[in-house]
Amino acid sequence: MPLSEKFNGLELPASADFHVHLRDGAMMEAVVPTIRAGGVDTVYVMPNLVPPITSSAAALAYKQRLQAQDKSINYLMTLYLHDSIIPAAIRGAKAQGIVGIKSYPAGVTTNSASGVYSYEPFYPVFKKMEEEGLVLNLHGECPSDCSKDITVLNAESSFLPTLKDLHAKFPKLKIVLEHCTTAAAVAAVNECGPNVVGTITAHHLFLTIDDWADDPFSYCKPVAKLPSDREALIKAAITSTGKFFLGTDSAPHDISAKKGGKGKTAAGVFTQPYATQLVLSAFELAITRGVITSSQVSADLLRGFLGGFGRKFYGIAESMEKIVLTKGTETVGEAFMGNGIEVVPFRKGLATWSVSWKK
Amino acid sequence: MPLSEKFNGLELPASADFHVHLRDGAMMEAVVPTIRAGGVDTVYVMPNLVPPITSSAAALAYKQRLQAQDKSINYLMTLYLHDSIIPAAIRGAKAQGIVGIKSYPAGVTTNSASGVYSYEPFYPVFKKMEEEGLVLNLHGECPSDCSKDITVLNAESSFLPTLKDLHAKFPKLKIVLEHCTTAAAVAAVNECGPNVVGTITAHHLFLTIDDWADDPFSYCKPVAKLPSDREALIKAAITSTGKFFLGTDSAPHDISAKKGGKGKTAAGVFTQPYATQLVLSAFELAITRGVITSSQVSADLLRGFLGGFGRKFYGIAESMEKIVLTKGTETVGEAFMGNGIEVVPFRKGLATWSVSWKK
Repeated sequence: MPLSEKFNGLELPASADFHVHLRDGAMMEAVVPTIRAGGVDTVYVMPNLVPPITSSAAALAYKQRLQAQDKSINYLMTLYLHDSIIPAAIRGAKAQGIVGIKSYPAGVTTNSASGVYSYEPFYPVFKKMEEEGLVLNLHGECPSDCSKDITVLNAESSFLPTLKDLHAKFPKLKIVLEHCTTAAAVAAVNECGPNVVGTITAHHLFLTIDDWADDPFSYCKPVAKLPSDREALIKAAITSTGKFFLGTDSAPHDISAKKGGKGKTAAGVFTQPYATQLVLSAFELAITRGVITSSQVSADLLRGFLGGFGRKFYGIAESMEKIVLTKGTETVGEAFMGNGIEVVPFRKGLATWSVSWKK
Repeated sequence: MPLSEKFNGLELPASADFHVHLRDGAMMEAVVPTIRAGGVDTVYVMPNLVPPITSSAAALAYKQRLQAQDKSINYLMTLYLHDSIIPAAIRGAKAQGIVGIKSYPAGVTTNSASGVYSYEPFYPVFKKMEEEGLVLNLHGECPSDCSKDITVLNAESSFLPTLKDLHAKFPKLKIVLEHCTTAAAVAAVNECGPNVVGTITAHHLFLTIDDWADDPFSYCKPVAKLPSDREALIKAAITSTGKFFLGTDSAPHDISAKKGGKGKTAAGVFTQPYATQLVLSAFELAITRGVITSSQVSADLLRGFLGGFGRKFYGIAESMEKIVLTKGTETVGEAFMGNGIEVVPFRKGLATWSVSWKK
């Protein structure tokens, strides 16, 4: 039975998106209202503003700005791993409601110039995080290095030994390998103990290198890899019992940073308004490609992948709000605009599922 | 001794560029005048106009349009391999001065929609070409195919068995594997007999996947691959005794097709005005990276790679015109404009060698 029949009218708890970029200022004001459109009531907010969020005070002030836009959303706040974060600050961060710390290798993606060169200096911080129960969120890519033949293509697989090493050194530290893009990353997460999980974006369930090669609106970091990697992600998602769950890494950029001028293309795919809907469409396409069958996609899996698994890992209560999935004739809206900003959404103009909120 | 000293003032025969896209109409009028700026007096002209050049009459008419722009250039004309090309037409093509036939696999690059799905139907044509001495120019990429994990990344290496098969079936047919981008392609060409050679572009001596991932002006087909592939190309170039020579694949697109609107990015890197100069800069950068040493780059190699090897393969006399290389403070010019067209050149704004024509 096609998913469009099987899940038409399906009621689910509101989704949770465990990796979002909500930005600040005018872009924040434009993007926050799209969270609920995606069927999401809980977001794990990335700290890579300019300057990055490196203190609890900055994170809480940011949270207030977010709440001023939409106070119905549960914003889970993070800090940006940085020299200025000392072990003594971890307990206080936890007490103030900070949920995790995000590590960016220096220079690999948007606003990562303040990122990490070596993990060893942070071992005392990780030890404290392990004790206090803060989550370590890893952007798992090695910087490109011609002498080692490391490029955007194998940046993630080159990072996996570091993931395993950190897990071995801090086995009780909860670690999320964010936005897994390769079969190798899926395997590495599976080989680690229960404290290591991976998030999977919606767009990586659709894309391969061919899709972003000529399309700036499908270009993100980590880049989408091979068809075989995409299929590994699809299979990890539909067989997940908690190891993998949704974190869209939705990353809005104004169209001028994507296609304007003569400069470089900003990395990031904008999926926020369709966070839940896109996952359903990705599974449908994988069925069309013969990678999975309709019967492999269960309502229980959706409940888990779209929120339940992540909430359990982070120790968050299930949502009291419900959404309803339908598939009619809706298409992904034209470029999303507001505040003089134009953000082109992923799969613009293509058919999409619809989400409504149960009253 | 740095190349800027070693080759400053070096006099060479005019370069020959054995793979150019000169387009038609206003773009042709804008691009043809840049050929001599690149130190080039002989160009091997690709036939992928819209519609493609599939008859000798069309090729000769195109040649006249090119000569009307600059009659000092030696235009070597090709046909686009297509169902309409029959064996009986080959002798006439040769008699009318057609030099070769270019094969595009269907759908892999700019204006390749009329391309080849299977080579077998063309065996009688190849047999006639072999007899008459027409050259077969191969765009050596397999179309992407998820079921075989073929993407832009391994499209070329997936094609190499076809190259070897064609060479085995038609050992006297002169074949050029155009715009080699991988270590595997270099090895395959080297493993074939003397009738198989490869062209190497200027830009593939500079680029890896990281360079084009976020830069539309470095995005071309075949895409640049890994650092190890780039180094294999550099080494193939500097050790060539005829197997490899320059074919820039310079491919102008108006900036609107690169960065405008919300559509896909056109594939193609524009190098024509700096065809000769870029090769020198690429070798300099490879020396900086420690891949080669200055002493490995000889004036004889430059003479061969920039024209002599290709002219010998195609049976064309050496140029009577001379160019002089200098390295001063020149930089690659701003976006090249004319006829309401804006084409951003490769390495815009960066230091470049200079070429002058000896009077």
